[in-house]
Amino acid sequence: MKEKITFGIIGGDMRQAKLAQLLEADGHAVHIFGFDRQPELVSSQSVNTLQQAASADCVVLPLPVTDEHENLNAPISGGVIRIADVLDAMPQGQIVCGGRIPEEIFRMASERKLRLTDYFAREELAIANAVPTAEGVLQIAMEELPITLAGSRVLVMGFGHTGKIIAHRLHALGALVTVSARRYSDLAWIRAYGYRQEFTEALDGRLGGYDLIVNTVPHKILNEARLQELSPGCLCIDIASRPGGLDFDAASRLGVKAIWALSLPGKVAPVTSGAIIKETIYHILQELGVIQ
Amino acid sequence: MKEKITFGIIGGDMRQAKLAQLLEADGHAVHIFGFDRQPELVSSQSVNTLQQAASADCVVLPLPVTDEHENLNAPISGGVIRIADVLDAMPQGQIVCGGRIPEEIFRMASERKLRLTDYFAREELAIANAVPTAEGVLQIAMEELPITLAGSRVLVMGFGHTGKIIAHRLHALGALVTVSARRYSDLAWIRAYGYRQEFTEALDGRLGGYDLIVNTVPHKILNEARLQELSPGCLCIDIASRPGGLDFDAASRLGVKAIWALSLPGKVAPVTSGAIIKETIYHILQELGVIQ
Amino acid sequence: MKEKITFGIIGGDMRQAKLAQLLEADGHAVHIFGFDRQPELVSSQSVNTLQQAASADCVVLPLPVTDEHENLNAPISGGVIRIADVLDAMPQGQIVCGGRIPEEIFRMASERKLRLTDYFAREELAIANAVPTAEGVLQIAMEELPITLAGSRVLVMGFGHTGKIIAHRLHALGALVTVSARRYSDLAWIRAYGYRQEFTEALDGRLGGYDLIVNTVPHKILNEARLQELSPGCLCIDIASRPGGLDFDAASRLGVKAIWALSLPGKVAPVTSGAIIKETIYHILQELGVIQ
Amino acid sequence: MKEKITFGIIGGDMRQAKLAQLLEADGHAVHIFGFDRQPELVSSQSVNTLQQAASADCVVLPLPVTDEHENLNAPISGGVIRIADVLDAMPQGQIVCGGRIPEEIFRMASERKLRLTDYFAREELAIANAVPTAEGVLQIAMEELPITLAGSRVLVMGFGHTGKIIAHRLHALGALVTVSARRYSDLAWIRAYGYRQEFTEALDGRLGGYDLIVNTVPHKILNEARLQELSPGCLCIDIASRPGGLDFDAASRLGVKAIWALSLPGKVAPVTSGAIIKETIYHILQELGVIQ
Repeated sequence: MKEKITFGIIGGDMRQAKLAQLLEADGHAVHIFGFDRQPELVSSQSVNTLQQAASADCVVLPLPVTDEHENLNAPISGGVIRIADVLDAMPQGQIVCGGRIPEEIFRMASERKLRLTDYFAREELAIANAVPTAEGVLQIAMEELPITLAGSRVLVMGFGHTGKIIAHRLHALGALVTVSARRYSDLAWIRAYGYRQEFTEALDGRLGGYDLIVNTVPHKILNEARLQELSPGCLCIDIASRPGGLDFDAASRLGVKAIWALSLPGKVAPVTSGAIIKETIYHILQELGVIQ
Repeated sequence: MKEKITFGIIGGDMRQAKLAQLLEADGHAVHIFGFDRQPELVSSQSVNTLQQAASADCVVLPLPVTDEHENLNAPISGGVIRIADVLDAMPQGQIVCGGRIPEEIFRMASERKLRLTDYFAREELAIANAVPTAEGVLQIAMEELPITLAGSRVLVMGFGHTGKIIAHRLHALGALVTVSARRYSDLAWIRAYGYRQEFTEALDGRLGGYDLIVNTVPHKILNEARLQELSPGCLCIDIASRPGGLDFDAASRLGVKAIWALSLPGKVAPVTSGAIIKETIYHILQELGVIQ
Repeated sequence: MKEKITFGIIGGDMRQAKLAQLLEADGHAVHIFGFDRQPELVSSQSVNTLQQAASADCVVLPLPVTDEHENLNAPISGGVIRIADVLDAMPQGQIVCGGRIPEEIFRMASERKLRLTDYFAREELAIANAVPTAEGVLQIAMEELPITLAGSRVLVMGFGHTGKIIAHRLHALGALVTVSARRYSDLAWIRAYGYRQEFTEALDGRLGGYDLIVNTVPHKILNEARLQELSPGCLCIDIASRPGGLDFDAASRLGVKAIWALSLPGKVAPVTSGAIIKETIYHILQELGVIQ
Repeated sequence: MKEKITFGIIGGDMRQAKLAQLLEADGHAVHIFGFDRQPELVSSQSVNTLQQAASADCVVLPLPVTDEHENLNAPISGGVIRIADVLDAMPQGQIVCGGRIPEEIFRMASERKLRLTDYFAREELAIANAVPTAEGVLQIAMEELPITLAGSRVLVMGFGHTGKIIAHRLHALGALVTVSARRYSDLAWIRAYGYRQEFTEALDGRLGGYDLIVNTVPHKILNEARLQELSPGCLCIDIASRPGGLDFDAASRLGVKAIWALSLPGKVAPVTSGAIIKETIYHILQELGVIQ
């Protein structure tokens, strides 16, 4: 159904390695660069030059592209790969995809007349990633709690992408799920799926009685006053991105067990994450008219 | 928690009658008008004048307010109630809520300086109504199909409010659920909930093999060519509002059993529907500052 | 996988008609008798003599075989078919299956040296039938209740074959499910699946507060004293076989809406029921060594 | 509701410590012995003599009572506690409960005229334990697999207590669940709950294509020939008690990742396990007439 094209996978972790395998399994030619420490992760014949990889029909960069702004995020590479070198190796008009791309790199790409897209900014990737994120939350809760999730009293804060799937999975395992949200429409969904509801604004004084609280809201919603309300032994898992939604200093002072769990998909299910990235890149290429 | 106020319920069916009971049960004073054929549906002492009902803190009109534009939709009333008479009985600034209000009635209310809100236009009501709608679809499917829903092959077309809950409930009963949608983000949700996916654009030639098709999309998506593809015995339930999403003439010619099921909430669960309207009116009054 | 053999289907309703079609679809030769009023239900060429049908490799009789003990249960037949005549038409050693076979007919078969098995007595059929039974209960509840099952408070009495699947489906639709049972092991299952539990012995005084009660226990468990406890509007569905588990006279006196719903599988899903009978007959024939 | 009695908890791990707390929370007097290394696990005032604990209304011994037959299983005790000493400290007629009691200890109790019951042999405990066991299996699978359980292809072997709940939870998380069983009735349940079925006898040649296999059957069902069929990367979790259901030597030779996960409830959910033991002991005492 899809035409065969060439991909260049430059840098990245297990997810990009798996992505390369999946693209090959779909019949595409794949050139990799930056996996020299474990080339077997990708495939047997995968010794390519940066030049080859950088001039494929579509170049795929890591997620995140970089931690700082100078070097590519390439943990399986033996050496350092400068982002400027990678971009310089590409011809004008090159189609490039990367994840969590900072402004600076967009600017660099624009100067070089490259066509750069952030696959991490796509909504379908965020939704698909909610599945491994939710399983990561379940895994942490199972590892940390001395009780079963079945029958446990859980509060999920927020009903966005991850909140929806986390609540769904906890309910499926028999937890007694309450979800807090601010909008009437979200509260209507919460009831329609059979969960109990709390208004975010009215949470004060209502946080006792839970065995587990999972926060998905990227504001300091679990402040010291609220942490003081928690039942002894209540576990808090915060998956909100920086600055997070929980006052970890206060939690430490109060003896509240709190875990900040970021970037779960790549950690708990790298193969699934690679597959999610692949699907998203196909969508980008369909919209660009490169494949059908 | 809520202050006690007065409500005037003027016209409507079982849902408004139940609404009156629920408001009384919450401690509000309720004046009704237009339930003279079965006043016991509402409560014992409910003989009120239009004047009383029309000057309550909040007046509630039916859903739909009217079928034509002259008279109130008041099936439990012995007589005809002109909408103009109802509006004329209200003081300036009166807070009024009604459902599916036509432009003309908004204009009439504006001339009289009434504060009219359409509760049917609220998203939380549409979401909450997806629950009785989905149960209505299940009921029709159980009544019409000679097979169990468990193990049946079902296609749900569209993944909006109703599509989401219909798919959820069918899956919960053991049906093999496929959902068609157009957007990548909807397709990601469909997979995250464990359903099979179809692209709406690529449905042609892929409609055989279903025992049940439920359409929620308000375009003529099930045209003659597609109806010809259906397996013998496949039941079609169309819940899309006018003009509907199915060519009923073609279905009749082809011998396809097709049911156009509209306004299911009021039919299958009038009490739940009354409760949903009540919640929505509370939200409106909270936003207007009438109650907290 | 299965060898092709011949079946004789004598009498019965839509389920046996569908059974005949399914056996043909599996490649077997099928001779029918007793479907003369609507032979098209079975297949086009199905004009057979009793003699032909009665000497097939396996003869299938209806479910129930008979209402009284003289005549075959053959509602699609234009005439009366005496059971004695059917049995007389069979050779010694004939393999025969029927459903709900009374002692008298077993005796008659034994005198004629026929090998008669009751497929309705097989546990796998009872379990499989729990699925259409549960859907029948859902359908009745949806038709009769003015509220949605989602959010409704339901008591299921008994946790045998049907109780298990009824509770599962109601829970799946978002009902708040309580199950009553007598044995500690059943109560442990009830909790493991996430339902609330009640001890059958301790039900007195605890029956208020339900919107729906489904009884599966074939004792008069819902007696007058207990019916008096029910909340106004509580619907009772009794699926216990004769004498039933509910005092219908008392219910009538008390104004309790009570429905005795028997033989649901054949009514709500005759095609599924035919398929279940087919599977069960295959198991019988495997155990007899007729097929592999 | 229950009368207040005295309990003596002698030896055991976190589960017995939690059991002591739960019994106290129910209002019973609890004397403990054998928790000297971490008495705070149980309660503050819990310094008791063996004599006190051994003459309570009901004495509770650990699960398992012993690994060998001489000493009590008392990992939180600083010293060694001989079982003979414990039994000698009890008066004739003493009611004693313990878990996994070997024949020899039953004999010793009988000689001393003690009334000894094995709570681990109770069916309701086995069923209740299926819940933490299933969560333990999910946890291991999430930790070990690089893919999400959602969308994974899983085979559960056996449909007893644990098989039923494991299949239920995996299905709830979106795995594609197949269950193998031998009996027609179990296969009917498997289909009624919406899983795919395999006949245990016909598994040969059908074991490829799974991402995860969970065995619950205590026979060597996963022998070398069958292990050779598995897809690369397929994870095997065996929860069958000794001798287990998997040839671990063969798995090691073949590079199949296989985990033998025993006694999961106490490991993954000691608090829930303590509560399960408490409920079971109440049942025993009810049957003995000690409490109502």
